[in-house]
Amino acid sequence: MPSAEEVLLEKRSPTGRQWEVQAPGLFTDLYELRMAEAYLSEGMSGEAVFTLSVRKLPPQRNYLIACGLDSLIERLESFRFGQEHIEYLREVGGFGEAFLDYLEGFRFGGDVQAAPEGTVLFPHEPILEVAAPLPEAQLLETLVLNQIHHQTLIASKASRIVTAAADRPVVDFGARRMHGLDAAVAGARAAFVAGVASTSNVLAGYVHGIPVAGTMAHSYVQAHESELAAFRTYASRYPETVLLVDTYDTLEGVHRVIDLARELGPEFHISAVRLDSGDLAALATRSRQLLDAAGLHAVKIFASGGLDEHEIDRLLQAEAPIDAFGVGTHMGVSSDAPLLDMTYKLVEYEGKPKTKLSPGKLVLPGRKQVFRLEENDRAIGDVIATANEDCPGRPLLRPAMRGGRRAGGRGSPIDARARAAGELASMSTGLRSLETRHDLYAVSISDRLQGKLDALRQSLAPAGRQSD
Amino acid sequence: MPSAEEVLLEKRSPTGRQWEVQAPGLFTDLYELRMAEAYLSEGMSGEAVFTLSVRKLPPQRNYLIACGLDSLIERLESFRFGQEHIEYLREVGGFGEAFLDYLEGFRFGGDVQAAPEGTVLFPHEPILEVAAPLPEAQLLETLVLNQIHHQTLIASKASRIVTAAADRPVVDFGARRMHGLDAAVAGARAAFVAGVASTSNVLAGYVHGIPVAGTMAHSYVQAHESELAAFRTYASRYPETVLLVDTYDTLEGVHRVIDLARELGPEFHISAVRLDSGDLAALATRSRQLLDAAGLHAVKIFASGGLDEHEIDRLLQAEAPIDAFGVGTHMGVSSDAPLLDMTYKLVEYEGKPKTKLSPGKLVLPGRKQVFRLEENDRAIGDVIATANEDCPGRPLLRPAMRGGRRAGGRGSPIDARARAAGELASMSTGLRSLETRHDLYAVSISDRLQGKLDALRQSLAPAGRQSD
Repeated sequence: MPSAEEVLLEKRSPTGRQWEVQAPGLFTDLYELRMAEAYLSEGMSGEAVFTLSVRKLPPQRNYLIACGLDSLIERLESFRFGQEHIEYLREVGGFGEAFLDYLEGFRFGGDVQAAPEGTVLFPHEPILEVAAPLPEAQLLETLVLNQIHHQTLIASKASRIVTAAADRPVVDFGARRMHGLDAAVAGARAAFVAGVASTSNVLAGYVHGIPVAGTMAHSYVQAHESELAAFRTYASRYPETVLLVDTYDTLEGVHRVIDLARELGPEFHISAVRLDSGDLAALATRSRQLLDAAGLHAVKIFASGGLDEHEIDRLLQAEAPIDAFGVGTHMGVSSDAPLLDMTYKLVEYEGKPKTKLSPGKLVLPGRKQVFRLEENDRAIGDVIATANEDCPGRPLLRPAMRGGRRAGGRGSPIDARARAAGELASMSTGLRSLETRHDLYAVSISDRLQGKLDALRQSLAPAGRQSD
Repeated sequence: MPSAEEVLLEKRSPTGRQWEVQAPGLFTDLYELRMAEAYLSEGMSGEAVFTLSVRKLPPQRNYLIACGLDSLIERLESFRFGQEHIEYLREVGGFGEAFLDYLEGFRFGGDVQAAPEGTVLFPHEPILEVAAPLPEAQLLETLVLNQIHHQTLIASKASRIVTAAADRPVVDFGARRMHGLDAAVAGARAAFVAGVASTSNVLAGYVHGIPVAGTMAHSYVQAHESELAAFRTYASRYPETVLLVDTYDTLEGVHRVIDLARELGPEFHISAVRLDSGDLAALATRSRQLLDAAGLHAVKIFASGGLDEHEIDRLLQAEAPIDAFGVGTHMGVSSDAPLLDMTYKLVEYEGKPKTKLSPGKLVLPGRKQVFRLEENDRAIGDVIATANEDCPGRPLLRPAMRGGRRAGGRGSPIDARARAAGELASMSTGLRSLETRHDLYAVSISDRLQGKLDALRQSLAPAGRQSD
């Protein structure tokens, strides 16, 4: 008997195809342009370092899965202002010609250090750091946040759903309700990185080389004269397909599948029935009984319809005999927490550390590194340190871009997926529970970094408040 | 004194610029392709009608603002399968060459009837209907849902924020946390349709001709030796700008603005201070007092930082002297309800009405029209009817595409914005309250449509359950 995964997955495609979503330089906030011009006119083109990190986890998340670096790098490499964009800015007004000339020649030429995709991270840990001339690093803010925020959000949500499904395959059905085209294609990839088995989104399969899967919709059943006629025809074309049984009445639909099995005899190879509405636990149990009684032990049960990690957990706690799950909207928009408190903050300018004193907003100054302490293949805690400290543990941040060019090859979602799975396996299983457990993994700040922050805060308080 | 809107808005750009986000035919779910091939092989290319509608409002929404039709039409007009896409599908496997040839020549040639962007709609009312050969109409499902769902979601959320702000301008700051590039550009447009004054997203301004606005970020203040030095320099370049005062301490920041006003005398033209953290009501009140005491009555107060409609309402109930709001994430991802229960359902095939019997999932059969009953410029209720009924009231659905071509010109966000404002003004003000009020506007089903549904359900129950 093939595994549930083999049954439900379509063939994996090769990677490396392109779907071009341009991110021109205009994908920025107006104030980034205003500030960049001001910096340039003040001669403030010294090197700046910005840190991207999450300040606080939503209560429904115990960890983050870093994602989005690959698409960010691709877009940073082609971040440009065309003539038509310059002309637009001229019409918006307030920009000097010297600045518009600067934009016309703009190329990102800085360095990026980042945690590879699939890395498990916690609040205040840098996801990435950009080092570049101040106006350059400032202009990128909106794009950096937009890409990493979205994909990290979806990967972190999907990871919970994969855990709840307890080794049963999860198929991404979210393209229709994710927020736009880019969200659907990048979101399918992020879910795959987190361990989702496949996606219904064909463009995501094409672009990212992740497995694509699909069953049938209610419309197919409705379009035919009867449910059995629909099943018969679909099975003749796709003998191993999954039949959707709830268009009219779920259990009657299962009876129609059994009727088809009797008609086809040894030619019957349907792999699963899909339940998409109603009391899924009860319907799965009853469907299993009906299928088994008809000798159809090999026909699996695939459940979908408004599922999230809590509902999947509830179904499996109730011992519902479900072999695989289709999850759409709740995963695709991270419905219980559709945002992360992620920021991109200036931490150094011309070698001088920088922070903020705004209440409740910790900004760790200077270039940093995160060291993961491991013992016997178990991750036991992280230390956020200054970049040039020699701490015990494995450093998580690596060069991702040097001089505006990608350092190393394209980020593979397969490698990122393996990394996420490996890192999670090395950590306390409590982190993967659906309860809030922000107490299970220790993240500390090195003495040196803490000392740097304290000294800076002391020097800033008077300077910020009274000086000049 | 200029109005708050004049102070905070940048110049409006002309419309009509392009930002190409391709939506190739591969932007579909795998099962759509499988079903389309099955339909074709069965000779089922008769005309089908699909209806897009929302089944149920989230508890936090009292109405929908239809949005997304313009970008959908643009993408339907160019929905194609390239050679490289066909080759990919060949590798995925299971497709016959006849079907791949069909895809190679695929052009959407159907009709679309739709409520224009900005129309106020309610559950079960068709947002649009597609009439096309069954395989064609099926292939579009994912794209149609993806575009209209996202933009209607954001417009419906933004409308609440605009209402809460009670005529004070709202600026969209959401690009960094919306879900990807397309989400940010389309989301800025959707928010504008709902009445948001402007966006920080320059690409959205360029593409959609909506006003762009911006202030300054903490990084600018941090990068300078002192807050006053930063303010002084920024003001010298942008005399009428908005200064961000909370990098170190909000009220000290306001004092630095007052210091700058003393330095500059008649050359001081700063339009506003921006508060971005802390107790905004108390800080706004104290800032107003400080500014007024210094004679700076013309300097307005702009508030931002994690705002949504409830927080804005709370601030204004507390009589916080705030003149304008910057709203980012909560609007951009519709954080309290990041999804709508929107579906695209087969309602007719070859002239025969279709429905579903799945529990709790009402599908109104056949082509439909929505009639809005109006008396003395007040909308008093809607009737969902069959398309060929002659009901009293104004029909909301209009031709949007004929034979695969746009009917009429590009949809203008300015027209859509005026429509949304006008329709909301014609309805009970209770709909715009922040409380759940699903009882204030009557939507009924015409006798003829109800009769059609009842007859169809009766005929289907036996057919679906026992037939064939």
